[in-house]
Amino acid sequence: MSILIKNGHVIYGDGLEVVRADVLIEGDRIAKVAKGITEGADTVIDATGRVVSPGFVNLHTHSPMGLFRGLADDLPLMEWLEKHIWPREAKLTRKDIKAGAYLGALEMIKGGTTTFLDMYFHMDAVAEAVLDAGLRGYLGYGMIDLGDPEKTEKEVREALREMGAIERLNSDRVQFVFAPHAPYTCSLALLERVRELASEHGKLITIHVSETMSEVGRIVERYGKSPVELLDGIDFWGRDVIIAHGVWLDSRDVQILARHGVSVAHNPGSNMKLASGVMPLGKLLNVGINVGLGTDGAASNNNLDMLEEMKLAALLHKVNNLDPTVADAETVFRMATVNGAKALRLRAGVIKEGYLADLAIIDFNSPHLRPVNNVVSHLVYSANGNDVESTIVGGEILMLDREVLTLDEEKVISGAEKTAESLS
Amino acid sequence: MSILIKNGHVIYGDGLEVVRADVLIEGDRIAKVAKGITEGADTVIDATGRVVSPGFVNLHTHSPMGLFRGLADDLPLMEWLEKHIWPREAKLTRKDIKAGAYLGALEMIKGGTTTFLDMYFHMDAVAEAVLDAGLRGYLGYGMIDLGDPEKTEKEVREALREMGAIERLNSDRVQFVFAPHAPYTCSLALLERVRELASEHGKLITIHVSETMSEVGRIVERYGKSPVELLDGIDFWGRDVIIAHGVWLDSRDVQILARHGVSVAHNPGSNMKLASGVMPLGKLLNVGINVGLGTDGAASNNNLDMLEEMKLAALLHKVNNLDPTVADAETVFRMATVNGAKALRLRAGVIKEGYLADLAIIDFNSPHLRPVNNVVSHLVYSANGNDVESTIVGGEILMLDREVLTLDEEKVISGAEKTAESLS
Repeated sequence: MSILIKNGHVIYGDGLEVVRADVLIEGDRIAKVAKGITEGADTVIDATGRVVSPGFVNLHTHSPMGLFRGLADDLPLMEWLEKHIWPREAKLTRKDIKAGAYLGALEMIKGGTTTFLDMYFHMDAVAEAVLDAGLRGYLGYGMIDLGDPEKTEKEVREALREMGAIERLNSDRVQFVFAPHAPYTCSLALLERVRELASEHGKLITIHVSETMSEVGRIVERYGKSPVELLDGIDFWGRDVIIAHGVWLDSRDVQILARHGVSVAHNPGSNMKLASGVMPLGKLLNVGINVGLGTDGAASNNNLDMLEEMKLAALLHKVNNLDPTVADAETVFRMATVNGAKALRLRAGVIKEGYLADLAIIDFNSPHLRPVNNVVSHLVYSANGNDVESTIVGGEILMLDREVLTLDEEKVISGAEKTAESLS
Repeated sequence: MSILIKNGHVIYGDGLEVVRADVLIEGDRIAKVAKGITEGADTVIDATGRVVSPGFVNLHTHSPMGLFRGLADDLPLMEWLEKHIWPREAKLTRKDIKAGAYLGALEMIKGGTTTFLDMYFHMDAVAEAVLDAGLRGYLGYGMIDLGDPEKTEKEVREALREMGAIERLNSDRVQFVFAPHAPYTCSLALLERVRELASEHGKLITIHVSETMSEVGRIVERYGKSPVELLDGIDFWGRDVIIAHGVWLDSRDVQILARHGVSVAHNPGSNMKLASGVMPLGKLLNVGINVGLGTDGAASNNNLDMLEEMKLAALLHKVNNLDPTVADAETVFRMATVNGAKALRLRAGVIKEGYLADLAIIDFNSPHLRPVNNVVSHLVYSANGNDVESTIVGGEILMLDREVLTLDEEKVISGAEKTAESLS
């Protein structure tokens, strides 16, 4: 299978140079980027007036939570969790979660996301939805033992069961990830087991760390250490760990994460909406930490739109620092693409020969994206998910001219609507 | 002329109650909102699966500045103005500004904005574009005299010339507004003249006030008073004044504005992007100040998307106060609709019998707006301008099913593109 994308404005290479060029895809890889490619291809896409961008990597979400979109906004975090989210989550069946996962996958395809790192339950069901959708999903079962040793064993068993089920699907599009929920919901015993199991099975780990001030306070009270120091004490950190949030990291935490090559998934929309706080982005970037971008779940965002998330990231750090030069468009664009791919050890997020053909084609024939003074700026500051016209993952076209080819859009939406009704 | 919008989810009345109903428009007004309206109409729009919303009122923008979109981001304000914006603005002809105004008008129609308050130059040219587009424009010539008495006279003459030209267009869709740029760029003599002229001609006034800390510092240094106190001293304030920004208002300023019934146009996107700071929204709302929402110009946003702006407003104040309950969805929705209309003395911004038929119909058949758990929340937190399907102003359909009926979209976009090229 080959695809030739003709005549687009291509965001090329690590330098994000915008060139008028054709992109030839052979199999799952980008084979050639050049002007006037003459090779034939099975499919030719005319990208005149379009921008060919690396697909977006959503480095932290809970994809089935679209079911709860808009159900409980403008509330304190604990009231939101305890009165609205947790009671509904307690009712969720495997089937419900799969319906939510389809909705999330559909939304991501429509917004040009090609890869995502997910944490939820019944991730083997999510994996089936991801495979149908054609996305790349890094899927973690969210483990919570609340210090109960019986629960520890149960959570490990469930994680290993889901890992096995996902591995049996035998596709590089779905990868199991260990996902202990957070230091304040997991015992040290569980976190130590996770560390061993991840190393043994060669899997990534993702975990919420230092999202809220009160969570950090709880850990400091219980252990006399920050969450990052606590996990450092059990040799948890490594290049295979991706922490979500990191809002309340202090300078010592940042040094520890940098030393171990830990990646951080920044979630500006969620951190703003839940009023968690502002991640110290400048500090993290200054010491060379790899920072990717995530939307978090749609119950706290309330969408999975990575184009919008880029704008939120840029604007939040500018106003928070009273400095308009920080979080510039290119820095934020890299967070949403290549940095996420790097965290997931994926040769993607860049349009360049040999990289995975994970791409988004974005329509620039709209007044809010013209004049085309600066392509990357327009994507970060003016575009939104609806501007994405076509989405390609590993050389497979998931959406062409706004039509999703891999999923039945109406069926997915009505399935999610019915599931939400049944939970209310 | 009559229009019947059938079967939508209508955001009804001041209470923003969402009801499944039909909306009958007769002439320029909403005649009836009820289930199963049987009256015939010249045009029938099927709004099944759609939301019928009040159109958005953009209470502060510089509509022709779309020409400069993305030209200079991530820069300090003064460098942005002095090196990039002002040199280009110096080159602008009447024709250039008209091309920019068409682009702005097109973008606003596509995003469901029905009314806007504008400040720029050659506003009689902008007025012609507004009339062609079918929007409501409140158009102010941005006066700057920098303390030069000759310039004062020149600016007054130009304002009165543009006022006359706009009045001769003889349409309630275009209204002249006095728009002295700011206390730091206008002499007190000019501001006093503006106050007299506005009262004499029964026109509104709009002015930038306390956008940046340095601007406030300059005024305090020069006059020993805050900008708001300074203008209070010349009896400038009144219910007919709309200030833009108000980022650095202190408690005394807020009291003065409240006492005089001044409205405030909040511009969260621009204040964040230019790192101006965070407006004290809570304080303003607590004393009953009427706060509307604006996008500012597209050179500092970088779009005119009021749906996106609502999200920015809500999220900014939540994180800034570390309180997720502030700037809730309904409060922000009112800022973007009825509060803006109120500031402009317009019976609009609410869907209710007798109000102007200024509406946006928004497609909810998209994954990011489903399940339909909460319509107003979805508009504030998940929708964007591209979700708007149809835009109606004063009973005239400007856009139907994403097709703009009043402007030639291709011509407007290519006109703006050529103008931008000629300025570079």
